[in-house]
Formats: sequence, structure tokens, C-alpha cells
Amino acid sequence: MPATTNLPSMISDYRCFSCFANAFVKLVEKQGLNLDEKNAFIRKMAVLYSQYNGDFSAPVFSGELHTLLKQYTKNPDIYKEAKKQCNDTALQLYPGLKKIVLESANPFETALRLAIAGNIMDFGASPDFDIQATIDHVLKSDFAINHSARLKQSLLKAKTVLYLGDNAGEIVFDKLLIETLMHPGLVYAVRGVPVINDATLEDAHYVGIDTVADVISNGHYAPSTILEYCSPEFLAVYQKADVIISKGQGNLEGLFGKNTGKETFFLLMVKCAVVADALKVKKGGFVVVAG
Amino acid sequence: MPATTNLPSMISDYRCFSCFANAFVKLVEKQGLNLDEKNAFIRKMAVLYSQYNGDFSAPVFSGELHTLLKQYTKNPDIYKEAKKQCNDTALQLYPGLKKIVLESANPFETALRLAIAGNIMDFGASPDFDIQATIDHVLKSDFAINHSARLKQSLLKAKTVLYLGDNAGEIVFDKLLIETLMHPGLVYAVRGVPVINDATLEDAHYVGIDTVADVISNGHYAPSTILEYCSPEFLAVYQKADVIISKGQGNLEGLFGKNTGKETFFLLMVKCAVVADALKVKKGGFVVVAG
Repeated sequence: MPATTNLPSMISDYRCFSCFANAFVKLVEKQGLNLDEKNAFIRKMAVLYSQYNGDFSAPVFSGELHTLLKQYTKNPDIYKEAKKQCNDTALQLYPGLKKIVLESANPFETALRLAIAGNIMDFGASPDFDIQATIDHVLKSDFAINHSARLKQSLLKAKTVLYLGDNAGEIVFDKLLIETLMHPGLVYAVRGVPVINDATLEDAHYVGIDTVADVISNGHYAPSTILEYCSPEFLAVYQKADVIISKGQGNLEGLFGKNTGKETFFLLMVKCAVVADALKVKKGGFVVVAG
Repeated sequence: MPATTNLPSMISDYRCFSCFANAFVKLVEKQGLNLDEKNAFIRKMAVLYSQYNGDFSAPVFSGELHTLLKQYTKNPDIYKEAKKQCNDTALQLYPGLKKIVLESANPFETALRLAIAGNIMDFGASPDFDIQATIDHVLKSDFAINHSARLKQSLLKAKTVLYLGDNAGEIVFDKLLIETLMHPGLVYAVRGVPVINDATLEDAHYVGIDTVADVISNGHYAPSTILEYCSPEFLAVYQKADVIISKGQGNLEGLFGKNTGKETFFLLMVKCAVVADALKVKKGGFVVVAG
């Protein structure tokens, strides 16, 4: 039976658009396009946005824009180097974090907190983040919403757990949580193709998450989990899963309030006012919310 | 004969769009619209932008958006109170500034500098400005481009001068410069209707600029001077003028590089990267440029 909350089902709104406009104006500046191409890209962005009519979805739009950017730049993975840096940074932190978890009075809670700290490594929100400061902060902060006790109970009963990954780098923190959970039926899902610095199968293998969980692709190009676009392979696992662990804003925006019938726990750092308003928390807050 | 520069004729580009998106997302938030109206407004903004095809003009777009906002808010002048505050602030500063000019070794240059300082009072760029800090700064700064000696010479020869005003508040600084110029054939032009905090006939009368110059409206709703849309009355004065003094980014964007055949001096504070790049100066720079 899914946990329930009194939260709105729609998250994306008009405010997302200025965020996209800022992000993509900055992005196209860095890609070696000429002025005509930059002008044309941003105009095309407006065309795509104008085609939504009451059905605007930030992660769908993001997927469309990044697909368009790949066409303009002729580069299928502009974040390739950034993802490697995120993974390497997190892998360097991993031994110290593992020690913190093992020496913790409550390894589950500590690993859960660290997994949420890892969610700061999100180029879709901002390429400027301080992972160490976020780790320090997450370990001593009150969570804005904390349904972690319910998550722990649900995991004890679940035969199959589907863990929806988010970003490169962050997946190292996810690996640490998965090692701590020691759940025998856990499947870890990544994006179908490179989009922003979201983790793909390549990243999962690079950080060795395949040594602690079965790893699958969701088969889609959006920086999210949008069920109607995911692959049959992914959907088969999704349907079988007793509990869904959903990392990050992108997955939240795709799944939250969609009446999926699945008990889903959203683990994230709240990075924008739109998601903050939807969850009725402050921007910057750490959240474990059953939805 | 117009003064010449080696500067580009097009100023607006794709970067303007994120600036508009930010400004109008913030604006619609403050207008008491419901969520559907806010979503619809921002979608309509994208529709309008998408209709430009290589002919994007920031001031034309701005005029369209502010006209649209008036329709949504049913308020023809959302900046009415802000304009009064700008005018009152500047009128309070006026006696002290007049004293500075009168006691200055070079009243023309001092009044010119102060007129450019007044250009900071621009809600189109930012509603958060520090006029006193800008005054202090402008009086002791090197100008990024300084064609003021040429301006002074041209004014001596000109029978008719058309001074294109920009913002409420700023027009008090313009009044001080006009009093200092003491040119017998000076006409001061304002916007045709309220748009942002740009000065209208009402503002001109409020600060008494009609006591030192003939005041006319340009007859159009854009926060700029776009000759193809200006009124016959305005164009008659424009055609007769020997020298044009153009205040601010909006007028620059409308007139710069347009081969008008008129000797035009653009006086402004550079408030964005797009105009900075076009003028090959840094953002924040003070400019008197013949174009």
C-alpha cells in the first residue's frame, strides 16, 4: 500500500522556464557554436516551450532541450568529462565516508544522509557545488521531511527494491547506502542515454555499483524517470518492485503524485523554489518523503 | 555629418531572452495573478519570442511583453508608484547636485556625468540600485568611451537638439544637464505610454523639465526610440534636429547602428553583457559614445 502525503501532484510551473532559459543560455555559450546557431537554439527552446499547453513537465522539456543541444553541438555527451570528475571526486571521498558509516551509531541513517548529500552533485541545478560542505551539513541537520523510519520498515518487508539513481558522483554515495542496506533484491536504475551529468550504465560500472546491485537502464533520454517513456525491461522491474527509492529532483518531478500505486520514497536535496513549494519545505532542505 | 564608430549594428541577441525570462517570471509573481494566468503569460512570452526569426529586437520584445502584462493585470501602469518614488528621490538630490555642478570647474562635464549616473534608475535592468553610490562613482571614474568633447562641439553648432529621455528619476538629472547646456533649441522626448519606469509626459511635468525644454512624446509603447513606430509629431522634430542625445540602453538598442544619418550621442551606464559586448566595454561602464 503506498504511503500517502497531502502534497500537490504537479510540480513544474512557469518558474521553471526562467531556470531553463538561464541554464541553456549559459550552456550554448560554452559549446563553440556561432552566434546564428546560439540565436537559433534559444529561439527553438522558446518554440518547444510554447508547444506545452497546461501539460508542462520540466524533466520532459529538459530531455528535449538536451537532445536538441546534442544535435547542435554534434556531441552526444557534453558532460562526459564532468561526470568523470564527479565520479572521481566521490570515489576519493568514499573510504572516509565508509569509515564514518561503519563507526556510526546508526549506519542506516548515516548512509541515508550521505546519499542525500551526494545529490548536490547536480549540474542540472548548478555546476558550482561544495560536496564536502554539503556532507558536513547533512550529517548534523534536521531533515525538512523525514520519513526514513517508514523507509526502513518498508525495506525490511520488501522482496524487490528499485533504486532510481540520479547523478554521476552521487552514485558513489548511493553505493555506500546500498552496501549498508544489504538488501538481497535491490536493482539500481540509471538513465538510458547521457543527459546532463546524470549517471548512465558507464558511470555505474565505473564506480562499481554493479558489484552491489543489479544495474539496469531506464531506456529513456530524460533526466528523470517518466514511466510512459521507459523501456519494457525497466518497467518489468518497476512493476515487480515492492519499494521504490527515488533519488533527486529529476526523478521526483517525473514520479511524484502520479498515483503509480507503488510505495515510493523520494530522497533529495531541494534545489529550487518550485520543488520547495511543492514539498512545502525551504530551498536547500534535505528530504526523505514518502509519496 | 554623423560621427562614426567601428561598432556592430545589431545589439540584441539570444542572451536577452534569459534576461526577459528572469524579469517577467519575477514580474508576474508580484501582480496577483493566479497560477494558470502566470503559466499562460510565460508560455505566451515564449510564443512571442519564437515568432522572431533573425530580427529579434530587445526593446520591441519588451514593449510587446509589457503590453501583454497590462492585459493580464488590467493595470496600464504597474510602475506608477515606483516612478513617483524615483522622481521624488531625484528631486530631493537635485539641490545638492545643482550646487556640485555650479561649483564645478567644468559644469558641462559634471552635469554630463551626473546625467549618466541618473541612468542607473532603470527598473528594466534592476529595481535594486544605489543612486548615491552611482553618483559618487561617476564623478571620479574614467569613462569607458568618452566622446564628450565632440558632443560639446556639436552642441555649439546645433540649432535644434533632440534629447531622448529614458527613466523616471533620471529625468531630474537630465533637467540639470539641460539647465547647464542652456541650449535654446532643445526638445526633450519621453515615451508614448507608461512602460517599465520609463518617463512619460506626466513625469516630465512632475519634475518640471517642461520649464527648461519643449517636451514631446515619441508616441510609442516600447521602452526605446524605434523610429518606424514613432509618431509623426516626434519624427518631425527628429528630422529637424541637428544633434540627438540618446539616454540609456533602451534608446541605444533602438537607434544604434541604424544609419539614421543623424549625429547621435549615446549617454548611458552599461548594464548588461550584451550591450557591453556591442560597445566593447565592460558591464558597469559609463559611456558617451557617438554612433
